[in-house]
Amino acid sequence: MQGLAACPTGRCSLPLPPGTGLATLGPFPRMLESRLMVEEIRPTAKELLSLPRLAPLVPMLYVAWTDGELTPAEIRMLGTAARAQPWLDLRSNTVLARWLDPLMPPSSNELALVREHIRAAAERLKLSPQESLSELGARLTELVADSKELPSSMPELVRALASLEAVLGVSGREAVRALVPSAAHEPRRIGPTEPTSFAPEALRAVLDRKYPEVRAQVRKWLEDPAFRYQRTLDTDKQREQVFAWLKQLADQGLGRIAFPEGDEAGADLGAFIASFETLALFDLSLVVKAGVHFGLFGASILFLGTEKHHREYLPKVATLELPGCFAMSELGHGSNVRDVETVARYDAEAGKFVVHTPSEGARKEWIGNAARHGRIATVFAQLEVGGKGLGVHALLVPLRDERGQVLPGVRIEDCGRKMGLNGVDNGRIWFDHVRVPRENLLDRFGQVSAEGEYTSSISSDGRRFFTMLGTLVAGRVSVACASLSAAKSGLTIAVRYGDLRRQFGPPGAPEVRLLDHQTHQLRLLKPLAKTYALDFALEHLVERYVKRTEEDSMEVEALAAGLKAYASWNCTAVLQEAREACGGQGYLEANRLSALKDDTDIFTTFEGDNTVLMQLVAKSLLTDYRQRFEDDRVYAVLKLIADKATAMADKNPIAVRRTGSEHLRDDDFQLRFLRYREEDLLASVARRIRKRLTAGVEAFAAFNQVQAHLVALAHAHIERVVLEQFIHGVNTVQDPGLKVVLGRLCDLYGLSCLEAASGWFQENSLMEGGKALAIRKEVVKLCTELRPDAVALVDAFGIPDTCIAAPIGLGHLSA
Amino acid sequence: MQGLAACPTGRCSLPLPPGTGLATLGPFPRMLESRLMVEEIRPTAKELLSLPRLAPLVPMLYVAWTDGELTPAEIRMLGTAARAQPWLDLRSNTVLARWLDPLMPPSSNELALVREHIRAAAERLKLSPQESLSELGARLTELVADSKELPSSMPELVRALASLEAVLGVSGREAVRALVPSAAHEPRRIGPTEPTSFAPEALRAVLDRKYPEVRAQVRKWLEDPAFRYQRTLDTDKQREQVFAWLKQLADQGLGRIAFPEGDEAGADLGAFIASFETLALFDLSLVVKAGVHFGLFGASILFLGTEKHHREYLPKVATLELPGCFAMSELGHGSNVRDVETVARYDAEAGKFVVHTPSEGARKEWIGNAARHGRIATVFAQLEVGGKGLGVHALLVPLRDERGQVLPGVRIEDCGRKMGLNGVDNGRIWFDHVRVPRENLLDRFGQVSAEGEYTSSISSDGRRFFTMLGTLVAGRVSVACASLSAAKSGLTIAVRYGDLRRQFGPPGAPEVRLLDHQTHQLRLLKPLAKTYALDFALEHLVERYVKRTEEDSMEVEALAAGLKAYASWNCTAVLQEAREACGGQGYLEANRLSALKDDTDIFTTFEGDNTVLMQLVAKSLLTDYRQRFEDDRVYAVLKLIADKATAMADKNPIAVRRTGSEHLRDDDFQLRFLRYREEDLLASVARRIRKRLTAGVEAFAAFNQVQAHLVALAHAHIERVVLEQFIHGVNTVQDPGLKVVLGRLCDLYGLSCLEAASGWFQENSLMEGGKALAIRKEVVKLCTELRPDAVALVDAFGIPDTCIAAPIGLGHLSA
Repeated sequence: MQGLAACPTGRCSLPLPPGTGLATLGPFPRMLESRLMVEEIRPTAKELLSLPRLAPLVPMLYVAWTDGELTPAEIRMLGTAARAQPWLDLRSNTVLARWLDPLMPPSSNELALVREHIRAAAERLKLSPQESLSELGARLTELVADSKELPSSMPELVRALASLEAVLGVSGREAVRALVPSAAHEPRRIGPTEPTSFAPEALRAVLDRKYPEVRAQVRKWLEDPAFRYQRTLDTDKQREQVFAWLKQLADQGLGRIAFPEGDEAGADLGAFIASFETLALFDLSLVVKAGVHFGLFGASILFLGTEKHHREYLPKVATLELPGCFAMSELGHGSNVRDVETVARYDAEAGKFVVHTPSEGARKEWIGNAARHGRIATVFAQLEVGGKGLGVHALLVPLRDERGQVLPGVRIEDCGRKMGLNGVDNGRIWFDHVRVPRENLLDRFGQVSAEGEYTSSISSDGRRFFTMLGTLVAGRVSVACASLSAAKSGLTIAVRYGDLRRQFGPPGAPEVRLLDHQTHQLRLLKPLAKTYALDFALEHLVERYVKRTEEDSMEVEALAAGLKAYASWNCTAVLQEAREACGGQGYLEANRLSALKDDTDIFTTFEGDNTVLMQLVAKSLLTDYRQRFEDDRVYAVLKLIADKATAMADKNPIAVRRTGSEHLRDDDFQLRFLRYREEDLLASVARRIRKRLTAGVEAFAAFNQVQAHLVALAHAHIERVVLEQFIHGVNTVQDPGLKVVLGRLCDLYGLSCLEAASGWFQENSLMEGGKALAIRKEVVKLCTELRPDAVALVDAFGIPDTCIAAPIGLGHLSA
Repeated sequence: MQGLAACPTGRCSLPLPPGTGLATLGPFPRMLESRLMVEEIRPTAKELLSLPRLAPLVPMLYVAWTDGELTPAEIRMLGTAARAQPWLDLRSNTVLARWLDPLMPPSSNELALVREHIRAAAERLKLSPQESLSELGARLTELVADSKELPSSMPELVRALASLEAVLGVSGREAVRALVPSAAHEPRRIGPTEPTSFAPEALRAVLDRKYPEVRAQVRKWLEDPAFRYQRTLDTDKQREQVFAWLKQLADQGLGRIAFPEGDEAGADLGAFIASFETLALFDLSLVVKAGVHFGLFGASILFLGTEKHHREYLPKVATLELPGCFAMSELGHGSNVRDVETVARYDAEAGKFVVHTPSEGARKEWIGNAARHGRIATVFAQLEVGGKGLGVHALLVPLRDERGQVLPGVRIEDCGRKMGLNGVDNGRIWFDHVRVPRENLLDRFGQVSAEGEYTSSISSDGRRFFTMLGTLVAGRVSVACASLSAAKSGLTIAVRYGDLRRQFGPPGAPEVRLLDHQTHQLRLLKPLAKTYALDFALEHLVERYVKRTEEDSMEVEALAAGLKAYASWNCTAVLQEAREACGGQGYLEANRLSALKDDTDIFTTFEGDNTVLMQLVAKSLLTDYRQRFEDDRVYAVLKLIADKATAMADKNPIAVRRTGSEHLRDDDFQLRFLRYREEDLLASVARRIRKRLTAGVEAFAAFNQVQAHLVALAHAHIERVVLEQFIHGVNTVQDPGLKVVLGRLCDLYGLSCLEAASGWFQENSLMEGGKALAIRKEVVKLCTELRPDAVALVDAFGIPDTCIAAPIGLGHLSA
């Protein structure tokens, strides 16, 4: 870059204007200058038009030099691809190279001669402006006397040229319209394409697919006038309102959706999650409170307890007669549950457990339902029996009596006002040698006899711990689903407002709708596509969760962890974008985006910090990988196979370069690329860790040194799963209109993933620059195509107007 | 990728375990299998060690095959670079190629033989494990009998090899330690490096550079016990509190900082902005209220008014005797001020202007100070004199009388509760034929005589409009500075908490601090570097703003627009990251991140929507570009010059590939790359627009079709400016310790920019894959180096403890 003089104002470094003289530009331009004098080696029209084998390339060469969008790199790319055409002889190649030297462009005069030649030929041949650039090129050979060295059939030649046209990324028909005079003044189509023909209700039915009755039921409950947003800044009032709502839902049977028979056999957590997801279209405090009581507390009894617990507690859980807490996190141990410090020591003489908080860091923190309504808690504590530590176990500890008085030995403090979710009464709990009966141990996986003998069906402490932690999985699935619903609410508000609100426009004409601005389409429709993708992926997660077995439970847990992270980050990003897209209106509380943002902001860190969860996903992939390729010999084979993919890409420049719309919108192409990235990152992170362990680095440090890589791997894995499920979902849809619009959303999601990772793909020689550029253009194009369907696509989420509540989400221009 | 069998569980697509047989893997592995049988063409140690010219490469080849981190692509890259070494003959090259075929790795046996050879040689030569891989290679030639074809001097050979080592990105000394046995058991250093030696106070002095007295003054004011956060959810109370604070500051002289003499000549807006920036370390509502009254309202009188206005109003502005509003935005016209609809019609008979709101969309919206305290407003309206529309002008319209009663013809409504900034009383205003004296027109740029004759020193309506809009520039500069301060507050809280809080750790050892996790370093230190970068860039902006002339004012306005967008987006992103990095503690209101987030969220859309502002930046660059290269001939020359840079990159594979730390940390390299991107995007967006205009697309549509590109250009421009200013700032620092730590931050910022744009740079052949990878690694490395200084770096922001307020930002583990 030296030799480029800086602009004298110091503001930017554009080349100097010509008045200052080329001589001041340093050594390189001087060289240019001298080349400019050697006129005879510049490309000439005469030379070009005299060679029959170059005839089919003439229109492309003309377009390459006159199309303002082509970069020197693209011109070079065309040259490389063209020179590979078998019909070119040495002489043709030499002239072609001269015509494609970015440093030596043809003069305007020569280009004008070429244009005249093409126009005259087109007229003689009566060509229509509807042809493609390749067709035009192929037809030009008809006027060439000696064309026998060219491909014999016209279609064959067109195919060969079409591949060049695709490499170039030029829209051929557009270029031809500019070249063939009869079409020169045809007005260029601007603005959105036609909408797809589909009914939002039909799309809604697709999204409601599983448990449509449960979703309909919850929507119906929410239509009750009691469920209207009560905007209050009074924390107590808000808590009582949320509790009243929860009681009403419990009375109507929300709890029975999860525990229809009051025992595990009858439990339908899939239905409960569907009800939870639908409920999340309304107030998020209500959803979280429901999740704490039914999802965490109720499920802990269901999964960690045994028949006696089910019989005694589940009916009271279902009716909300016994509001409960899930006391796992401690101040000092948020994500790292294994190291909680609360102790439950068995006193064999009394036949009781003594629950105690040994230090300030051991206080139970952030416990939902604790500050106000909870009467009992599932407490996670280090179990000690006969002086022996047995790891983390859960037991039921009463907190308040029937009148709501805190019981002796228990101290509870309010966590205080939060950014959001102030309808949930989070509290801190300290236990001072609180004694509870032996029966209060949730003893499905570990039992203590009256005499103080410990038994467990799972011999490994670690394995038992992770089995018990399985209760958290439902929580993570639910947070993922609630994140999805909140993102849908935000998108519905922002897309409807973007379709209504106008700003800026051509002089003398009405201002245009926000959604007709390209940047606005990109900022809202890409997240819309991702949110649709997540809808399908979460359906898959719920199904796998409901059907999970002992064998695949670890895998399902990792999937839940990864999708919770991905969905909650998406929610935060979508709502931020939605807020900004609605400008000042988005900032008004009345338009609800503020509450949505504040309420969901914690989703990225509760039920497991996202960054920690992503590492858990990566570790699960690594465990799996290691188990399969334990010994060295196999590792070597694996390395060969892994290398093969790279080698294949090297050998298949077309896949690396192809830029046609059809290719880019091919699911198989998108998925293969995401799969390749996942596999490659997995193999490389395994190598890195292995290397460090071999070098004697201790495991914790070795993993810490590759943390960013682990997160990247998890991200690649989750994106692959999400795209896979979206593609699968689109394939199962029958209705042709729906298939088209969902296909576009799916392509937009897949290509957005590739666009965001284009650095990585290029780094690994899987993508050439031209392809990365074509993907970016295709993303813009898909947004333009989806624009007319945008409102119908958010209508299909089927969010009741009372839940939307925001005036700007309901057809008004302001709150 | 076909031929890779999917994992049968469907969970991921790893290659199948070997038990299933290679035969099932499809055509490609079968080919592999057959190649595997041709043992004789596999690389052998004997062949390698027999060629003297390969001797210096032996250690690198060994490391290439045994270092688990090398990918096939990297191995190939080594091959390409090595084969270019002039001393290699054909035979050596053939063997080298065989040793670097990723599809045909050497067997473990052969590698063991090579290792033995190196070890034996190292022992004979008494080599120390401290040597680099290149030195080791060069030394090995000492044992070779016939080495006369090799570079003659050892340093020359080492240099040649070092470039290979750099291309490879392998840390040589580490590899040597693994190879040379005496060092095999030396413990590997883990954890943070030593902190830089610098005093936070000295760094704070660097940041305070301009106007240190003003900053000290404001800090002192804020130490008054009156300035303590009063957490209240009562909107009225909060507004009164903020007004009382503002009054106290006005009494102490805040207003006089801006208008010391009460006229433009004495105005020191630089000092006012410094006071504003410092004030933004405290409550954001107070800052915005101060900005509305002093910055927008006061500055509108100063810059749009004339002497009579200055004399009458400025003293009352300085004392807050006359709280004022800046009534520009309308419901229908937020960003698009040119199309406001409010009318000011001159009634020549009465000698008055009649101010009127003709439609609902024309109501003044979001006007700060309007709902409660404002007594007068600068109103922007379409001026009509003698039936002729003269474009947007500003005039003073009284809103309330001295007792606070709204005046006749004026209607004001409260905007209602917002996400944040509830201490600012935003309102809506309607005017019903309100009459104000002729003198109320702020008539610096356009005057109306008593008889109704309009005069203006600026003949073009458009130019006059933009001149008047210049008043907004100070607002944008101020929002950028407030964004910077809020980001500093968030980082101070999150970095201090990250240094205190522990989570996860090796078994049996204490848990490690959050900031010792790699992901935590990346999530906080990259934003920290960017925030430091912005500090220097905003200093530059303020200086340019203060010194602006008629000539460069458009340029300064574009810079202010771009930096406002960049700084406010940074603020939103930093605070989000800070909140998540603090987990649940970050969610508690007591820890202040919640208020910081909520209060600043509007910064990205007020004083101009960021996306719109970025397009303004791009358009300013384009205007400039077009003015310089107006005619076609020049355009052609320009094209040649622009192409040159690409050509140079092609001709300079080293710059594209170099991966050494020293090279990556070279300011000049970083800046050249960012400059190149800016220039390239500018030229290409100009080409695209030109093409569309030539094709007959109307200007509005042509710009709309390249909006994303415009935003990318503006982003590239701003990043270049920010890096340039940061580099400049570091260069002016004398203290060696400060220079080191600021240099690291500057490198981290520069490389983070390149990392984020690595897709673009590869697309344009300016970066090879290996370089992109090396940049990523260097970013991680810089974070590790900065880790020990993290707390000192936020301490240097010098935020008073009372402003921090958050318990977790002041050494506590919880609120």
